[in-house]
Amino acid sequence: MSNNMTTNLKHLILACQNQGVTHFVLSPGSRNTPLALLLAEQKVDLTVAVDERSAAFFALGIAKQTKQPVALVATSGTATANYAPAIAEAHSFHVPLVVITTDRPQELQEIGAPQTIPQRGMYTTNVKQFLEINVQEPHPDVTEYIEYQVQQLVHLSQLAPSGPVQINLPLRKPLLPTLGTSWPSIALQTFGRISSRLAAESLAALINRLIHRKVLLVLGPTNQAYPMPQLRTVANQLQAPIVADVLSSVRGELSTFTPHQLLTIPPELEPDIVLRFGGTPVSGKLLPWLKNHHIPVMQVGDAYLGQDHSRWAHVSYNLSAQDFLTQLAATNVSGQPNYQQRWQHHFNQQHPVPTTLTAQTLPVLLAQAPQVQQLFLANSLTVRNFDQAFVPHHPVQVAGNRGANGIDGTTSSAVGMALNHVPTWLVIGDLAFFHDLNGLQLARQTHVSLTVVVVNNDGGGIFSLLPQAQAPHFEHLFGTPQELNVAAVATLFAAHYQRITTVAELNHLTTTPWTGLRIIEVQTNRTELAQEYPEGLS
Amino acid sequence: MSNNMTTNLKHLILACQNQGVTHFVLSPGSRNTPLALLLAEQKVDLTVAVDERSAAFFALGIAKQTKQPVALVATSGTATANYAPAIAEAHSFHVPLVVITTDRPQELQEIGAPQTIPQRGMYTTNVKQFLEINVQEPHPDVTEYIEYQVQQLVHLSQLAPSGPVQINLPLRKPLLPTLGTSWPSIALQTFGRISSRLAAESLAALINRLIHRKVLLVLGPTNQAYPMPQLRTVANQLQAPIVADVLSSVRGELSTFTPHQLLTIPPELEPDIVLRFGGTPVSGKLLPWLKNHHIPVMQVGDAYLGQDHSRWAHVSYNLSAQDFLTQLAATNVSGQPNYQQRWQHHFNQQHPVPTTLTAQTLPVLLAQAPQVQQLFLANSLTVRNFDQAFVPHHPVQVAGNRGANGIDGTTSSAVGMALNHVPTWLVIGDLAFFHDLNGLQLARQTHVSLTVVVVNNDGGGIFSLLPQAQAPHFEHLFGTPQELNVAAVATLFAAHYQRITTVAELNHLTTTPWTGLRIIEVQTNRTELAQEYPEGLS
Repeated sequence: MSNNMTTNLKHLILACQNQGVTHFVLSPGSRNTPLALLLAEQKVDLTVAVDERSAAFFALGIAKQTKQPVALVATSGTATANYAPAIAEAHSFHVPLVVITTDRPQELQEIGAPQTIPQRGMYTTNVKQFLEINVQEPHPDVTEYIEYQVQQLVHLSQLAPSGPVQINLPLRKPLLPTLGTSWPSIALQTFGRISSRLAAESLAALINRLIHRKVLLVLGPTNQAYPMPQLRTVANQLQAPIVADVLSSVRGELSTFTPHQLLTIPPELEPDIVLRFGGTPVSGKLLPWLKNHHIPVMQVGDAYLGQDHSRWAHVSYNLSAQDFLTQLAATNVSGQPNYQQRWQHHFNQQHPVPTTLTAQTLPVLLAQAPQVQQLFLANSLTVRNFDQAFVPHHPVQVAGNRGANGIDGTTSSAVGMALNHVPTWLVIGDLAFFHDLNGLQLARQTHVSLTVVVVNNDGGGIFSLLPQAQAPHFEHLFGTPQELNVAAVATLFAAHYQRITTVAELNHLTTTPWTGLRIIEVQTNRTELAQEYPEGLS
Repeated sequence: MSNNMTTNLKHLILACQNQGVTHFVLSPGSRNTPLALLLAEQKVDLTVAVDERSAAFFALGIAKQTKQPVALVATSGTATANYAPAIAEAHSFHVPLVVITTDRPQELQEIGAPQTIPQRGMYTTNVKQFLEINVQEPHPDVTEYIEYQVQQLVHLSQLAPSGPVQINLPLRKPLLPTLGTSWPSIALQTFGRISSRLAAESLAALINRLIHRKVLLVLGPTNQAYPMPQLRTVANQLQAPIVADVLSSVRGELSTFTPHQLLTIPPELEPDIVLRFGGTPVSGKLLPWLKNHHIPVMQVGDAYLGQDHSRWAHVSYNLSAQDFLTQLAATNVSGQPNYQQRWQHHFNQQHPVPTTLTAQTLPVLLAQAPQVQQLFLANSLTVRNFDQAFVPHHPVQVAGNRGANGIDGTTSSAVGMALNHVPTWLVIGDLAFFHDLNGLQLARQTHVSLTVVVVNNDGGGIFSLLPQAQAPHFEHLFGTPQELNVAAVATLFAAHYQRITTVAELNHLTTTPWTGLRIIEVQTNRTELAQEYPEGLS
């Protein structure tokens, strides 16, 4: 049986080969021993060049001639610094190189160990991307990550303007791989470098060949507006239901379903293929669900491409959604008749209008208020609540800071959104609200119309739904109650303040015109959260 | 009259506005005083936000809503570090931000000055590009650079995937700008974000409206192969002469002219418009010539876009050359009849075949040797000599390390090129040859067929053509004679060696089949260079 390092390095080598690396240039040393032996075993096209500076310029020459990325493999220390001149040249002339540097493990860094220099990001902006992978970590996700991400990286090196990329591999002794064992087969990732028309036509041909032709569209968060006419046309033509993230801003424009609904779909309604647009969904369960159900995912877009931490989208079209959908509509593609209708029928039952005001009913109640047209959602529990239950039947611009998912700066961003003179609603927990009190000053100063709904459960609610909920010191370390006097905050920033407890009070607020800054407090109970989310967050 | 800082900051503000920045968010301090006052004078849409963290998240909100880049302006020190969280969010969610940080001047760095922290590249890979501009330097190129490069940068922030960029501005007291003076008008740079078809059609319409319709194609170095059929078709349709860089590898495929010839063209043959493809030409005079003659340049390409240090290409189409040319050929565009022919007629005179072997005649002689099919050219003098005089009438793959233009690693790169089993010629000066002796080991080891022509003038020839040629200590500092025993090098690396002095000897070499490694020495005289290049390098 292979050891863990061997398996992972085999995946790394195969991932390079999958994306067009045929030639490896190795400058041997102790630290890159396992790669050296495995490259020889795999019988790759291999040149051994003892002088690393020469090796890198040699690789450059091969890549210039073949127009293919060439891989370099160095041992640790100054060896890697000898690559720098050729990497600079490759960066300036747009030559794809995959620079693999081996390194000492973490316990030998900055402590006087021999042949150890800082190798992380050492080529600075001369490489298009830097990746460090600990191939000796025995977690299966690492192996799958290598298979996925190394292919992305090698592909990136070839995307215009092409250029070098670096992979740094800290390796701990013993450095001998297991030789003579079988090599895995790894999934080929396909990156559409074809035109919108050809991509659409090939996808149409594929869909038309499916036995059941059940196509699902998944729309993630986006910073651009989705092209509504094209989406509508394609969804109709394919009879495809649309699962839309709350931050897609599409829910009020088209008939859509929530990620939460997808997770509960009966087997006969499961899609055969998914076309995925936009960024990482708010729902943490959506992408893993698609993967666990082995439903093929095609990713389309010019911004979020390759951003798939589920590592399941094996075809990625680097095309604008609008171009692609326009071309897809022009094909003879057809989906299963009534597939969309069967979804609608399945989820048909009417939910009664909530009669109490809680963190969970707030999204449902606001969805029914046509005056709510612009909405900013704070992390972390708020945006998830809304993703689950906010399905308006009128257009709503919905935004949130869902790139890095911080709770900092939320109010300021909502004020920025409100600067367009559209009355804006911000729904925010007390912790995120406290974090960016100064954002209220901007609201006051810019005279925007902003309603801040503070869902106050006196602390960090989301932690009650995470594994540490039962840990010692929970309240002190995670609950972090701030005993925030929301009314006093309102006074400080000259905002109108109101605490509401009933649906009627909320309805009054949503139906009465308002200008300026107001803060609405809804007190909820953090200790009840675990009961309200028996299955955790979706 | 405006002071220099004022002029440059006005250009910076206007450049931002030209590329879509309408809103500026300022967090005041001492160091950003001049920007603050000028932004107010220009009456931009300005928000003053005293808390920088809040300011940055606010700008993020505006950009999310408007889908336009928003500019941030901070004073120096920890103020700039407060932008970091929102910049990280903008990077992850692809939101365009133009982050302008003001800084202390160089003499206050790392010396205990107040409010001074390392601001260069402080946002690491969370920004798409970092630029530092000293706006107080009184050189006119700086002003023009700001006008050009800031527009490039703001455009870059909006290219998919969009994201933040940083401009750091070191400023020295006094910090008061000159107010109440007129604002310059700056050239709008146009970045084609349209399809190949529309770009081609609009260009065709423009050309067809020109009085004289004299169109010139300029092909720079490239790491991709130029699309010959499309080039041929378009050149014929437009009756456009082609000026081809030696590293375009096109000279032997199509009838082309050299950059050197363009520089000597009579006024009546000057083009009305230039379509420029590929990277920075080897000739240092080509782009300045186009600029000095006020000939509009349209740049086309998906790799080298914006790489125009002449700052003269005001329209840049981010399209592949092949797509663009295909679409252009499909239009009804037509150039001046016989324009190509008039160039051919002008340069018609036959040059006699050289009868002596020198550094200058070597390119001419090798151009007439059909067996020379793959050629690597070293920096610096060699590639320039060849750019001027190497015009083969048969296809030749020509390569050189012309991204960062180093003399290091040349032989290794040539060996990499030769790995495709095509006999390869490397022409190299003695200094570059010495620099990468170890590359010869790779040639020996990989059994490539490589002819290394060492043009040995015992030192750095190009310096004799640069201003320091008359400086004291020239020979010691720039001439750097190495007294290299080329024959001994050949012995060391088991290469065949021959020193040649005549054209007949060279002709014998180019017409006799050869396998393996050989080193041919051509001794030349460095002290005669100034006479051989009376007008300097072209």
